[in-house]
Amino acid sequence: MSEHDDEAPVCDAAITLAFSVLGKRWNGMILSVLGSGVTSFVGLRKAVSGISDTVLAERLLELAEVGLITRAVADGPPVTVRYELTTAGAELVPTIAQLGRWATRNLAAPVGQAAQ
Amino acid sequence: MSEHDDEAPVCDAAITLAFSVLGKRWNGMILSVLGSGVTSFVGLRKAVSGISDTVLAERLLELAEVGLITRAVADGPPVTVRYELTTAGAELVPTIAQLGRWATRNLAAPVGQAAQ
Repeated sequence: MSEHDDEAPVCDAAITLAFSVLGKRWNGMILSVLGSGVTSFVGLRKAVSGISDTVLAERLLELAEVGLITRAVADGPPVTVRYELTTAGAELVPTIAQLGRWATRNLAAPVGQAAQ
Repeated sequence: MSEHDDEAPVCDAAITLAFSVLGKRWNGMILSVLGSGVTSFVGLRKAVSGISDTVLAERLLELAEVGLITRAVADGPPVTVRYELTTAGAELVPTIAQLGRWATRNLAAPVGQAAQ
């Protein structure tokens, strides 16, 4: 009873790892939009409603660092930058779609969104 | 070309909705730990390594508000509070496990974790 009524296992390391990426605001949406074929910074910014340029740039760098997206610069003028999912990133897209279907069935509205 | 080289669709509303919950730090881990059978505040705090009491309390309230967990108070002494997944919350657990398997295959270490 009291404080020791359950064994308090540590959260699965794999799940902790997954949410080190997906538990950061915007990352799931960015990966999903890239999965739908958008490749430009401007396209991403438009598709991910509410994100700022600074935060989008930061997230794209981080997602590239962990190997989920590539950033390819083509010589200009104009210089163009294409963002694309790697194989690892693309492998996540069906599971993200599954999360979307779950949300449609089970969540009413993005209640918690304002608070972060 | 240039700014208009893709049509910039808006991120799927269902996915935006899913990440209004899962894109907040800790929520995925909390739901996963509840799914493993931990029910007490103390058990959750131990299992979700690094979370503070204040933030855990806040997240539990929010998860109850959106209908993913229940909070049941049993008269004491001592008063005990049990947190459990609702059907909607429990339905998410297999997909969270799938995210964990994806992370094991594709992520090296929780690189982005420090930054939020």
